Amino acid sequence: MEFEESGIGEECGVFGCVAAGEWPTQLEVAQVLTLGLVALQHRGQESAGIVTSNGASPPTYTAHKGMGLVSTAFPPEALLKLRYGNLGICHTRYSTTGISELQNCQPFVVDTLHGKIAVAHNGELVNAQALRKKVMRHGVGLSTSSDSELITQLLALTPPMEELGAPDWVARIKNLMTETPTSYSLLVMFKDVIYAVRDPYGNRPLCLGRLVPISKLHKVSNEDTEGWVVSSESCSFQSIGAKYYREVLPGEIVQISKHGVKSLSIVPRPEGDLPAFCIFEYVYFARPDSIFEGQMVYTVRQRCGQQLAIEAPTDADVVSTVPESATPAALGYAQQSGLPYIEVLCKNRYVGRTFIQPNTRLRQLGVAKKFGALTDNFAGKRVVLIDDSIVRGNTISPIIKLLKEAGATEVHIRVASPPIRFPCYMGINIPTKEELIANKPEFQDIAGYIGADSVQYLTVEGLVSAVQEGIASLQEKENMINNRNKSSSRVGHCTACLTGKYPVELEW
Amino acid sequence: MEFEESGIGEECGVFGCVAAGEWPTQLEVAQVLTLGLVALQHRGQESAGIVTSNGASPPTYTAHKGMGLVSTAFPPEALLKLRYGNLGICHTRYSTTGISELQNCQPFVVDTLHGKIAVAHNGELVNAQALRKKVMRHGVGLSTSSDSELITQLLALTPPMEELGAPDWVARIKNLMTETPTSYSLLVMFKDVIYAVRDPYGNRPLCLGRLVPISKLHKVSNEDTEGWVVSSESCSFQSIGAKYYREVLPGEIVQISKHGVKSLSIVPRPEGDLPAFCIFEYVYFARPDSIFEGQMVYTVRQRCGQQLAIEAPTDADVVSTVPESATPAALGYAQQSGLPYIEVLCKNRYVGRTFIQPNTRLRQLGVAKKFGALTDNFAGKRVVLIDDSIVRGNTISPIIKLLKEAGATEVHIRVASPPIRFPCYMGINIPTKEELIANKPEFQDIAGYIGADSVQYLTVEGLVSAVQEGIASLQEKENMINNRNKSSSRVGHCTACLTGKYPVELEW
Amino acid sequence: MEFEESGIGEECGVFGCVAAGEWPTQLEVAQVLTLGLVALQHRGQESAGIVTSNGASPPTYTAHKGMGLVSTAFPPEALLKLRYGNLGICHTRYSTTGISELQNCQPFVVDTLHGKIAVAHNGELVNAQALRKKVMRHGVGLSTSSDSELITQLLALTPPMEELGAPDWVARIKNLMTETPTSYSLLVMFKDVIYAVRDPYGNRPLCLGRLVPISKLHKVSNEDTEGWVVSSESCSFQSIGAKYYREVLPGEIVQISKHGVKSLSIVPRPEGDLPAFCIFEYVYFARPDSIFEGQMVYTVRQRCGQQLAIEAPTDADVVSTVPESATPAALGYAQQSGLPYIEVLCKNRYVGRTFIQPNTRLRQLGVAKKFGALTDNFAGKRVVLIDDSIVRGNTISPIIKLLKEAGATEVHIRVASPPIRFPCYMGINIPTKEELIANKPEFQDIAGYIGADSVQYLTVEGLVSAVQEGIASLQEKENMINNRNKSSSRVGHCTACLTGKYPVELEW
Amino acid sequence: MEFEESGIGEECGVFGCVAAGEWPTQLEVAQVLTLGLVALQHRGQESAGIVTSNGASPPTYTAHKGMGLVSTAFPPEALLKLRYGNLGICHTRYSTTGISELQNCQPFVVDTLHGKIAVAHNGELVNAQALRKKVMRHGVGLSTSSDSELITQLLALTPPMEELGAPDWVARIKNLMTETPTSYSLLVMFKDVIYAVRDPYGNRPLCLGRLVPISKLHKVSNEDTEGWVVSSESCSFQSIGAKYYREVLPGEIVQISKHGVKSLSIVPRPEGDLPAFCIFEYVYFARPDSIFEGQMVYTVRQRCGQQLAIEAPTDADVVSTVPESATPAALGYAQQSGLPYIEVLCKNRYVGRTFIQPNTRLRQLGVAKKFGALTDNFAGKRVVLIDDSIVRGNTISPIIKLLKEAGATEVHIRVASPPIRFPCYMGINIPTKEELIANKPEFQDIAGYIGADSVQYLTVEGLVSAVQEGIASLQEKENMINNRNKSSSRVGHCTACLTGKYPVELEW
Repeated sequence: MEFEESGIGEECGVFGCVAAGEWPTQLEVAQVLTLGLVALQHRGQESAGIVTSNGASPPTYTAHKGMGLVSTAFPPEALLKLRYGNLGICHTRYSTTGISELQNCQPFVVDTLHGKIAVAHNGELVNAQALRKKVMRHGVGLSTSSDSELITQLLALTPPMEELGAPDWVARIKNLMTETPTSYSLLVMFKDVIYAVRDPYGNRPLCLGRLVPISKLHKVSNEDTEGWVVSSESCSFQSIGAKYYREVLPGEIVQISKHGVKSLSIVPRPEGDLPAFCIFEYVYFARPDSIFEGQMVYTVRQRCGQQLAIEAPTDADVVSTVPESATPAALGYAQQSGLPYIEVLCKNRYVGRTFIQPNTRLRQLGVAKKFGALTDNFAGKRVVLIDDSIVRGNTISPIIKLLKEAGATEVHIRVASPPIRFPCYMGINIPTKEELIANKPEFQDIAGYIGADSVQYLTVEGLVSAVQEGIASLQEKENMINNRNKSSSRVGHCTACLTGKYPVELEW
Repeated sequence: MEFEESGIGEECGVFGCVAAGEWPTQLEVAQVLTLGLVALQHRGQESAGIVTSNGASPPTYTAHKGMGLVSTAFPPEALLKLRYGNLGICHTRYSTTGISELQNCQPFVVDTLHGKIAVAHNGELVNAQALRKKVMRHGVGLSTSSDSELITQLLALTPPMEELGAPDWVARIKNLMTETPTSYSLLVMFKDVIYAVRDPYGNRPLCLGRLVPISKLHKVSNEDTEGWVVSSESCSFQSIGAKYYREVLPGEIVQISKHGVKSLSIVPRPEGDLPAFCIFEYVYFARPDSIFEGQMVYTVRQRCGQQLAIEAPTDADVVSTVPESATPAALGYAQQSGLPYIEVLCKNRYVGRTFIQPNTRLRQLGVAKKFGALTDNFAGKRVVLIDDSIVRGNTISPIIKLLKEAGATEVHIRVASPPIRFPCYMGINIPTKEELIANKPEFQDIAGYIGADSVQYLTVEGLVSAVQEGIASLQEKENMINNRNKSSSRVGHCTACLTGKYPVELEW
Repeated sequence: MEFEESGIGEECGVFGCVAAGEWPTQLEVAQVLTLGLVALQHRGQESAGIVTSNGASPPTYTAHKGMGLVSTAFPPEALLKLRYGNLGICHTRYSTTGISELQNCQPFVVDTLHGKIAVAHNGELVNAQALRKKVMRHGVGLSTSSDSELITQLLALTPPMEELGAPDWVARIKNLMTETPTSYSLLVMFKDVIYAVRDPYGNRPLCLGRLVPISKLHKVSNEDTEGWVVSSESCSFQSIGAKYYREVLPGEIVQISKHGVKSLSIVPRPEGDLPAFCIFEYVYFARPDSIFEGQMVYTVRQRCGQQLAIEAPTDADVVSTVPESATPAALGYAQQSGLPYIEVLCKNRYVGRTFIQPNTRLRQLGVAKKFGALTDNFAGKRVVLIDDSIVRGNTISPIIKLLKEAGATEVHIRVASPPIRFPCYMGINIPTKEELIANKPEFQDIAGYIGADSVQYLTVEGLVSAVQEGIASLQEKENMINNRNKSSSRVGHCTACLTGKYPVELEW
Repeated sequence: MEFEESGIGEECGVFGCVAAGEWPTQLEVAQVLTLGLVALQHRGQESAGIVTSNGASPPTYTAHKGMGLVSTAFPPEALLKLRYGNLGICHTRYSTTGISELQNCQPFVVDTLHGKIAVAHNGELVNAQALRKKVMRHGVGLSTSSDSELITQLLALTPPMEELGAPDWVARIKNLMTETPTSYSLLVMFKDVIYAVRDPYGNRPLCLGRLVPISKLHKVSNEDTEGWVVSSESCSFQSIGAKYYREVLPGEIVQISKHGVKSLSIVPRPEGDLPAFCIFEYVYFARPDSIFEGQMVYTVRQRCGQQLAIEAPTDADVVSTVPESATPAALGYAQQSGLPYIEVLCKNRYVGRTFIQPNTRLRQLGVAKKFGALTDNFAGKRVVLIDDSIVRGNTISPIIKLLKEAGATEVHIRVASPPIRFPCYMGINIPTKEELIANKPEFQDIAGYIGADSVQYLTVEGLVSAVQEGIASLQEKENMINNRNKSSSRVGHCTACLTGKYPVELEW
């Protein structure tokens, strides 16, 4: 048994860029795409792909895909090949389905009667099987199991078939949105335009940024725009010199071209349905410097820690964290509880994958090669250890053992999110129901099972309030842009993996 | 210009293990060696090597070396090959000389009249050139530029040439130690014994550990020994289930066999000389959970931060760190100054090496793809940012820029070590004197040069006192083991890179 | 200038196998496929792919594709993955279009309403552009430029859309054959059946074989069948223990299942058209031990040499060959002319691709690292050197230079095929018209240009007669199988690259 | 059981080059070395190495070594690195000892008191163990098992130790030659000179060539020299534009510098001993276009075939060859016997290494994927098949099976060399005595064992006479150069593997 990661994971990240000057431009779009993708690497590490377009009529598309991290998948010759693009979209992927082959990698490019389109997709179509049947009934063969190919063929197929006039891709995208409610944050590139699309429930994130002249990063006016970017997370803006502009709204279709950003339409949700942005983006997946719904993820995590300190106070000496993702929650807990914050573990940055076939001796040990105990900081003390989530329960256990062997008198686990109990069908990789510790008999005595002195979780209500407390009324913002559609403006989040309440019926 | 690491680096780490049971034993020595090496990976990432011995007479040695991280250099088939060793030594290397080829990798194995010996070395012989000449004058050709080959040939060559009796390797090691004063922490494996050697000045670290039954990690008696390990740093003990035993003393030769650990001799320093353990092991190189001279490195760094707060107080709102190495100093500074500790940067764990050939636009930006700013934590605030060292001055500058663009009103840099001004000839990779920012004209206005509102360094005296304050009298410890040699027992550290005062004359 | 290959090349080879026993069978289909593919490696070296089916209902297909030779593309783990197939098809590919990416590799698998089909194709559809348009007009997107994907989508799309009953793949294949006349030798796998299809002109080769018990290779009865194979060339049968059965006829659809081989239909050519089997398969592409139209390729090449000796006799001392492909023609020339056959060149088997950037000196030399001159065999003699074809004229020139420097007094080139003057649109990679030496001004003095004492080519008539002389009347054979279609039974070959007379109108 | 190569193999090839113009010269020595090495690739395919020197004082040496073929081991960046050499030596290696690691690769470079020397060696020192002991007794450690390192250390060590004056490498080489009689063809590079050395028995080949201006390849005068080359075989001269000059004589030391080639000395054999050039270089190892002792290897092989036809005539219809190495012998046999020469097998050029784990079916078959039978050439005929040697007897057997299944009525094997019965200790890789078919009980009925109708071998006397017949009196040539040493001038060859008579006592 290797010492493994937590077992939940994001499926993908998408990113796009359009240079705003006259083309061909000095701005190297492929470089911006690569850096943007590197910043989204935490959302998928199995493969990466970039497609650029020169924006001409007809356009020349250049594509490169590769397995592994962006740094592996994009050697210098790949970047050289891509360098003439004036716009482009890219994708980084972690496969939930287990089939991790190059041909499933995105973006997907297909040649249609009206020219080539490229599609990058984050999410999972809840009614993918029904849609596949539909497409195939029309006589189309599907060569991969990817939703991205399915979406692309749906776009190619969808009537109206405007053979004589210009292709109406927006009508086709709208049609697609009526056929599948969630979940997708989608980039569709056609010639000189990128359409950025978010599903009506806004389940996966998507936001817009503006590339500004570096010299004016401090004070930027609207005139100073070198290009537009669109990304799963705003954390990708900083390293390329882009400024956060706004989120793509649930159900919105945004057109990005060198002439700027234009909201084309907002496809509504069914009457009465709330938005359903994935709450685990806040808890675990997103990078802490990203901004969703007007608030920094780090701040939300800190609030979760504060809330946890209120809900689950501890009689202990010090508060600490399982580095690095639980640190904001630990600092919040410390602040709220008044207990001193210390570090108890240091991380081995170079742990890699060592091919250890442990003998009995090492198996007993749990092989905690990933962390070292900072013994003198906590020996003889009672430690509150904050973790962001417990999925299978097999990673926290050796850490507790390590701390106790190093001299902690008590170790109390406080988890800054509620127990995960249900599968996700909207783009998150979660172990099977049976593998989740919260569904096992051992959960009755979770503290005993993992070797802790006590274990407490944040409540669902606590999490929701920590998340929603900071959201400035979205209604006003939305109304500014789209005053015809007030129903989408209320606050709501998807908590299906915690509560089993899915935003749409699964048999949609 | 890539955003680069600080530019100083450790050269190598060494590790050894002897199984203590009857041979062949259940303990898989190769597995223990690999895990030990992974824990020392921060001391060298360019190549790794393991040599095991079955301990028989004559012994069978098995060697494997490879470029890159341990995880790359040791694929499963390599470990399979090594699995029958009952003892072994290993080495991880970062080349200071720029020649990074497989044939320079350690451990070095040579066949001698008395059988094969294997040598692993951390350090740099101050009189290597003179010793090479000497060896070659004897008629020996040297096939690499590595000190390890030189040491091996010196051991093979050194009289007395005990042709008829058993080879006296200890006499040869002593002879070697009279020929070169520093710096070396050395492992010499011969048949069923590892000799662990530290130079008389104790310039590089080396310590001993005891492998204990996992079930008795909490309460261990002397009888419960499954094996012995020796390592550059004690951080490698935890992940293999070993207990810290003690340091190898300056000048000491320790024999490790399945019968246990035995101190054979302590070769003295010249009268009046103090030990000269590298002070930068505390400041920068070592892993924070390692123990030197009885104190945890993390604690020393925290004390440096406290001392810095005393020497260089700041009128500011918050204290923070350049993650991750400066965090203990920042927490110490916060504690001492009473200012709140916050996080201002988050790290991209997947940054990799992306082949960005930045255009003018990205070059101006500094391409801070490594860090994201946690804007909301410090916008509108005056930040004290603690760094552990400033070497060339080109890494802190884009960070300051990032913080200011994200809204910090002031950024004050406090450095938890003194300026580096001099080269090291004892195993540390430091840029040339000309490249060091502290030797440049720009240093006169270092704050202006890097864009900070103020910059202050810890003093040499402050550093030395922060380090030495926590050292329990070494004299007593040493006297316990070797009561003939009191001169080596006083406290002393090498600060040559800061002060230019080298522990030995360089023309030795 | 590297010393390069001749510049013409086959595009691909296809191979298929069905185990004939009860499933799952002892016969390892993946092994047979791999060996069959290795024997077709001369038809394509850029990529290879295998798809196997377990033949169940619904079937499980397993696919593996890789770049490079079969030995590179199919490591042991790939074969392991494929081992449970009871039938399968495979493909080896050399891209003429220059786009050599994994996603263009065959076989192509698509999921359709009636289940997955897999397609492997050798040839080039003369009306591919029109067919792509047609498919896309139907709303299908095409994700590659490969004809194989196009064929697959055409099969998926073609009415009748038998939604309620079983899918009628044969009807669909027939429909495909009415839409595109040439060129394709096609394998279509569906569940437990392989359909082997050859276009009505029979432009590319395809033949059937029977796997027999090894012990009965000498004397086989019809009962002893372990499986059926289908291949571009019969040379692949020997190494797997298969016996040549017969050719797939022009226009024929053969169904291969575990129950045996069944001719389903022969789609006729337009009234009056002759078959158009590629004559260059005889001249250059095919392996000499393959059998086409009842005759061994080697024998045809020998006859070409004899015919050449009649058409172009030479006053010389010895006859020799450019090894290895021209050897049968050289032996034929020697036999007919009465001149002794000798070897003048030996080949460096290990020449590989050395990255020589020749300085002026080596460039003048022509770098003939591929061949060594067997000086003593011909020094002082007049040599007739037989080559199979001269395409660009840049490979024969350094050989002549080599022979002259080594002492040949005269070198007369006799080419066992006519000059190539026209492009091929049916699956052969030929340089552009401008690059062909026969279309250049230098061709007027080709002997002077390449440094020979004389140059003579075989005539088109000579070639055709050498090829057709040995063909037993196909008419009788065809009539046995399909007595409704006598028009396809006359002998005919495609000589378009020599004469410009294409078998179908190119704008079909 | 893979279908394997014959099982005997050359160990290595050596090559050297000195540019003759003023330095730095236009001649790219690294390119010449690479091409020279490619031509020697048949002498070793496991690793390759090049060392160049700029010839300055002190010299700068540049080395590159790699595993695999020259084309793999020397990527473009390696050649770039080596390009500034004015002279250099190189080596290609096949390890007989089974330890095939980079560190055993040649050339070996060592730093000595008098500067660096580089050594490349073909052969095997018969008294290596004694010499290793001697070197180690002097206090030298040996880091590899290679003879090349041993030779280098012997050269470094050997007195006289000329500390004050210039190093006398020639004296050292002579001293080495008195310590070990055979076998070695040796290149020693020091600064601006290459010493080419052949052992007193001349066991391994070595010859000299002159690089001439390409424009004057036809008619060269002594003035037109661009450089000097030295090589294991003359076949390497053609592709680099060099002219064969002469052999290095048994026992000779030749100095090669930019001033030309100079014979320094000839170290004599013991009184009465004949030279002992390896007769298997003629039979099997050398490339057919190489020249030894004044005669082309191809011609000798042809004579072996003629002699075989005299010794072992056959009542058959046709004569053929196992391609490609037995072809000259087959043509000789055909010529002498009057039987027609035909081809019966064609080779699959792309056979590669396919990971076939044959099931019972394929195992029975023998998996003859390497060859195809040219059925129509011999069906119904009695075939004499000439092979150059039969080592283990497992490669000829499936070929005979193939021919019989394809219709040969009889297959008679005639082997153009005598049976191999004894091990070689002088640089040839031969299977163990037990593995040699000639030492097995089955040899009594070898024809039955391999499935042939009859088997006959060339006699030792026949082989020796076929080899020696063509040698012009060496005595005169030698006397021209070295009139003091007439004993070395008689003709003699090593036939130890055939007769068990070794040229020197093995316990030397």
